Amino acid sequence: MAPASDPMSLAGSPGFLPALTQAVADGHEACITLLADLVRHPSLLGQEQSAQDLIAGVFTGLGLTVDRFSIDLDALRSMPGFSPAVTAPDGRDNVVGIYQPRVHSGRSLILNGHIDVVPTGPADLWSADPFDPVIRDGRMYGRGVGDMKAGIAAYIAAFSALRRMGYQPAAPVFFQSVVEEECTGNGALACLHRGYRADAAVIPEPFGQTLMTAQVGVMWLQIVVTGTPAHVLDTGAGRNAIESAYAIAGHLKPLEQAWNDRACPHRHAAFDGHNHPIHFNLGKIEGGEWASSVPTRCTLDMRIGFHPGQDPAAVRAAVEDTIAQALRTDPALNGVKAEVSYGGFQAEGFALPEDAEVLAELEASHHAVTGGIPRRVAMTCTTDARFFALYGDTPATCYGPHASRIHGIDESVDLASVQEVTAVLALFIARWCGLEPIVEQ
Amino acid sequence: MAPASDPMSLAGSPGFLPALTQAVADGHEACITLLADLVRHPSLLGQEQSAQDLIAGVFTGLGLTVDRFSIDLDALRSMPGFSPAVTAPDGRDNVVGIYQPRVHSGRSLILNGHIDVVPTGPADLWSADPFDPVIRDGRMYGRGVGDMKAGIAAYIAAFSALRRMGYQPAAPVFFQSVVEEECTGNGALACLHRGYRADAAVIPEPFGQTLMTAQVGVMWLQIVVTGTPAHVLDTGAGRNAIESAYAIAGHLKPLEQAWNDRACPHRHAAFDGHNHPIHFNLGKIEGGEWASSVPTRCTLDMRIGFHPGQDPAAVRAAVEDTIAQALRTDPALNGVKAEVSYGGFQAEGFALPEDAEVLAELEASHHAVTGGIPRRVAMTCTTDARFFALYGDTPATCYGPHASRIHGIDESVDLASVQEVTAVLALFIARWCGLEPIVEQ
Repeated sequence: MAPASDPMSLAGSPGFLPALTQAVADGHEACITLLADLVRHPSLLGQEQSAQDLIAGVFTGLGLTVDRFSIDLDALRSMPGFSPAVTAPDGRDNVVGIYQPRVHSGRSLILNGHIDVVPTGPADLWSADPFDPVIRDGRMYGRGVGDMKAGIAAYIAAFSALRRMGYQPAAPVFFQSVVEEECTGNGALACLHRGYRADAAVIPEPFGQTLMTAQVGVMWLQIVVTGTPAHVLDTGAGRNAIESAYAIAGHLKPLEQAWNDRACPHRHAAFDGHNHPIHFNLGKIEGGEWASSVPTRCTLDMRIGFHPGQDPAAVRAAVEDTIAQALRTDPALNGVKAEVSYGGFQAEGFALPEDAEVLAELEASHHAVTGGIPRRVAMTCTTDARFFALYGDTPATCYGPHASRIHGIDESVDLASVQEVTAVLALFIARWCGLEPIVEQ
Repeated sequence: MAPASDPMSLAGSPGFLPALTQAVADGHEACITLLADLVRHPSLLGQEQSAQDLIAGVFTGLGLTVDRFSIDLDALRSMPGFSPAVTAPDGRDNVVGIYQPRVHSGRSLILNGHIDVVPTGPADLWSADPFDPVIRDGRMYGRGVGDMKAGIAAYIAAFSALRRMGYQPAAPVFFQSVVEEECTGNGALACLHRGYRADAAVIPEPFGQTLMTAQVGVMWLQIVVTGTPAHVLDTGAGRNAIESAYAIAGHLKPLEQAWNDRACPHRHAAFDGHNHPIHFNLGKIEGGEWASSVPTRCTLDMRIGFHPGQDPAAVRAAVEDTIAQALRTDPALNGVKAEVSYGGFQAEGFALPEDAEVLAELEASHHAVTGGIPRRVAMTCTTDARFFALYGDTPATCYGPHASRIHGIDESVDLASVQEVTAVLALFIARWCGLEPIVEQ
């Protein structure tokens, strides 16, 4: 392509889109290779470093300035949006690839993805090794392939495609690969603390090529239940901590129900299309030591959702009040104690204005590439977008590929969708940042 | 005491009981010291050896021949009463102190106790270190102090008291300190395999100076529940394995209820005094990995009781049928899998004839020492007595001290009761085995 004089009009010029589509297609195999390489690094919580090494190398190869830094909990603790760590931050870095244009004429952009993946679940249930990706029927399978290594591969491929066309963005772009999205978000928060801001942030989370307009708040809590122990020869003499724990989880269900009720005053209009936006999940349990002893202690790990606008402190109070009342009033819990603590997500929800420019430009890019209008969705989970939007003065949304069974068994991503997302992101970069020709040094 | 000519009449001779009571009192402090020493050895499953070293030393000091041997699983596997091991048998021995009289004129006897103790539960709930015994208000506190190190200390003290009086049993006595009573009973089974038999066996389990006439069957089983995994953003899409596991445990409750029903055909007359002899205990649980993932797998460890006469194979079939039906019929378990396996107790129940001589002699001994008649009880737990009674042609019962919170927090034993049990056991030895004077070598 011949360079045009106006950085912002290039994307709309005749022939640009077909050329971009071709450039993306030309790079698709490399994108898939990178994605598979990323999946091979089992970047579970605490084990992200080798995947980040790979990312840093890719960023360097693209000519980006690499900024690598770890999470400084002491620095973050007083920031809004901070969540108590669930593991030490040592030995795993955020990696940011910094792109600076020759002339900053367009709008700056953060492209953010998280490198951490959730545990695999029982490996025997997978049809193949979750960290040895396989491709079947146009889908790649592996833990984290969708959530969200495909998104990272796509934003890298988008940038590469533009470069292959002879262009580079006409505004700063910060390519972020962060840790700890899946438990605290402190990786993204550390990027904020380091000063990263832009005119918009896009996270290619695997939400099926929809545009995210809102997300719920998410909180992790741990309930340590102490029953009253006894020999099993008379189970009636003790209060089984495992059964008590389950009863307490049951007492939280009406709270979940109340928050999902259409009449709930906390309900946010962005979730009007959802019958059940708030999920309480009993995600982990451990209790007892010996089959023939009435168990004394049982620990529950729960994840609870809540509405945008609900203060996490108020959510904690509601949970604690509910449990305290259960202990007071349920005869089956007589003598039982429960201690609630909070590690991991204390994440507020948020909603983006429907007229946000970033949504309009992504929508236009999606339409140009696919011919359709992307669905706008309020998500019933959290993403790192909250940090940019709530605390970083950076409008943020998610737009990423179709994936299935994220957090489940045989997670996979639709590779055609990854290619389409790559094209949409490349066009979006062109429209948002503008383009300038690459000048050989 | 002057030696009498008839070994069997000595115990009834005038002045014998007061002298025995005095000898037991004289030895009580040593008995308490030994008990505390035993508690200081944390003889949890797999860690019994140092306590057994202590026992072997004590047996040697009493002039007994020490027979020390480990559990040979291959040899035991085909024996009736075998239970699948839950841990390797290496490095922990049974210890038997063998006493042989000069002349075998009375009835031989096995005095059996188990050295293994169950886990402590949360140590922070104990008022003191569970393995550093303390005495308060006439009770000693510590894990295993009642169940059943006090019983072992008592049978040793009983033998010592007789010796201090100048007597020794006029029949063989086998003092057994066995491992693995609390999970399989394979320690006691190994004693059978080694050939130990006697005219009776008494186990001083801490049953409050009652006479055990029957005990239930006990089975350990593990249920591995597999749900269908999903991201927590739509918990409805998955089947939570933790909640499914609870549901399955709930489906077993009617079986427990049915077996406790007065009309249950399996009910044994020995348990007519019990409204609820059969306990199902959900003793251990572990499930899930991540608060924000719908858990895929959850493992339950249960202990279930059943009636004397019920075949363990039939019990297993009943449990499996119940679970299979639950999976077929409960819509909440749609798509859920459950695998049942059996490690640990596969222990049959048994009942002793009410006219068993060992009961009569123990009753008479108890009456002579305390002035009361010991309550006869059918126990809702299992003990090693089953091996002797069912497979060893050796009538067996339990008679031991008052303890509280066995298997619980702040387990303790009443030391006055330990002294009384010591006197009863000493008198019982005298009556059962007869006595012969010790002849200085």
